[in-house]
Amino acid sequence: MQIGILGTGVAGQTLAAALAEKGHAVTIGTRDPAETMARAAAKPPAKVSFREWQQANPGVKLATFADAVRSANVVINATSGVGAMSALEDAGADALGEKILIDATNPLDFSKGMPPTLTVCNTDSLGEQLQRAFPRVRLVKALNTITAALMVNPGAVNGGDHTLFLCGNDTDAKATVKRWLDEWFGWQDIVDLGDITAARGMEMYLPLWLRTWGALGSPMFNVKIVR
Amino acid sequence: MQIGILGTGVAGQTLAAALAEKGHAVTIGTRDPAETMARAAAKPPAKVSFREWQQANPGVKLATFADAVRSANVVINATSGVGAMSALEDAGADALGEKILIDATNPLDFSKGMPPTLTVCNTDSLGEQLQRAFPRVRLVKALNTITAALMVNPGAVNGGDHTLFLCGNDTDAKATVKRWLDEWFGWQDIVDLGDITAARGMEMYLPLWLRTWGALGSPMFNVKIVR
Repeated sequence: MQIGILGTGVAGQTLAAALAEKGHAVTIGTRDPAETMARAAAKPPAKVSFREWQQANPGVKLATFADAVRSANVVINATSGVGAMSALEDAGADALGEKILIDATNPLDFSKGMPPTLTVCNTDSLGEQLQRAFPRVRLVKALNTITAALMVNPGAVNGGDHTLFLCGNDTDAKATVKRWLDEWFGWQDIVDLGDITAARGMEMYLPLWLRTWGALGSPMFNVKIVR
Repeated sequence: MQIGILGTGVAGQTLAAALAEKGHAVTIGTRDPAETMARAAAKPPAKVSFREWQQANPGVKLATFADAVRSANVVINATSGVGAMSALEDAGADALGEKILIDATNPLDFSKGMPPTLTVCNTDSLGEQLQRAFPRVRLVKALNTITAALMVNPGAVNGGDHTLFLCGNDTDAKATVKRWLDEWFGWQDIVDLGDITAARGMEMYLPLWLRTWGALGSPMFNVKIVR
């Protein structure tokens, strides 16, 4: 499958490496590929520069947002929250078309120090903002409630027995993403929360997730819904 | 132990009945006891009027907020979010003193229809507002992330193996509440998220909790933190 991943950070790198390893044709999209490749320093929390990362992952292509989207059967949005809208605008509504967009972003605002606050919440969400701005794209909010290493390897925690949430307005797209997340990474316990307004809850969970990370001393955890 | 519970709704009733059954002297506080007893109709989601409930639970006293607090060794705030501040104001800072206040409230605003939004979030929380208004009280935020029946009976789900969060500024008070929640109800897996600012995350979890309830069709669930 041709997979376009938006964002060159840890989430984008982790998803790209895992999907390329499964044999998919992965292109990472960025605003300015030449600028991304020219960066000498790592952008924390990444440990190495993108250039070094790509040397270790030569199967993954780097392209503009528009090119990464245009060539893709499915797009995964792994940008930062503040960069999400402009990444999709760069890609363009025509390139996005009616493709499935897995939106893994969180509207975190680090500009006022730690802990981050949310740029949007309560009566709206980043997922809804993106879906409104690109009404044709079939946006499925998913993967935003866990650390990158766990997105692609749920088995690293509790034998994989924990819960992923998703939501979106397109029932077929959600069923397809559910199947892919199992095929790609082994996600078994996926709870569909309904339409895209559930992105509010999925994004507003982040402050609890961040404090739990602090309490446990590691982001390698998740919640399991038990009943 | 003398336990004061603020609020006559389902959460207050459920906590009061369970604690009275354990042999504690429980007083429920309300704004106007005569008015509460005069109500003929049930206040949803309660199934019966408070008067009928009290006839079935004669060991539980009803008093003003101030009297319920004054007689108590520990106070549990089980009011609605919108009623929390005025309940504590009615009780008064002198009666509250330096008592431990277990704050189980959520700042839910049902006035604009379903699903409710939060009256405060992101850069502040109801827990912080209450602690700021009553700086001497030792507020421990807890029990706000589960349905009332599960607060007092964690064993009803997954053999009791799931997670309760708490936070607050007073380390001793948190250790005491942790012990009580185990002694009273059998809570084993309690994660201390740090100071009272973690109440933001605990309260902002509610939208996800509400959507998960919708997806599962029942509020009898909780999260288990797995790592």
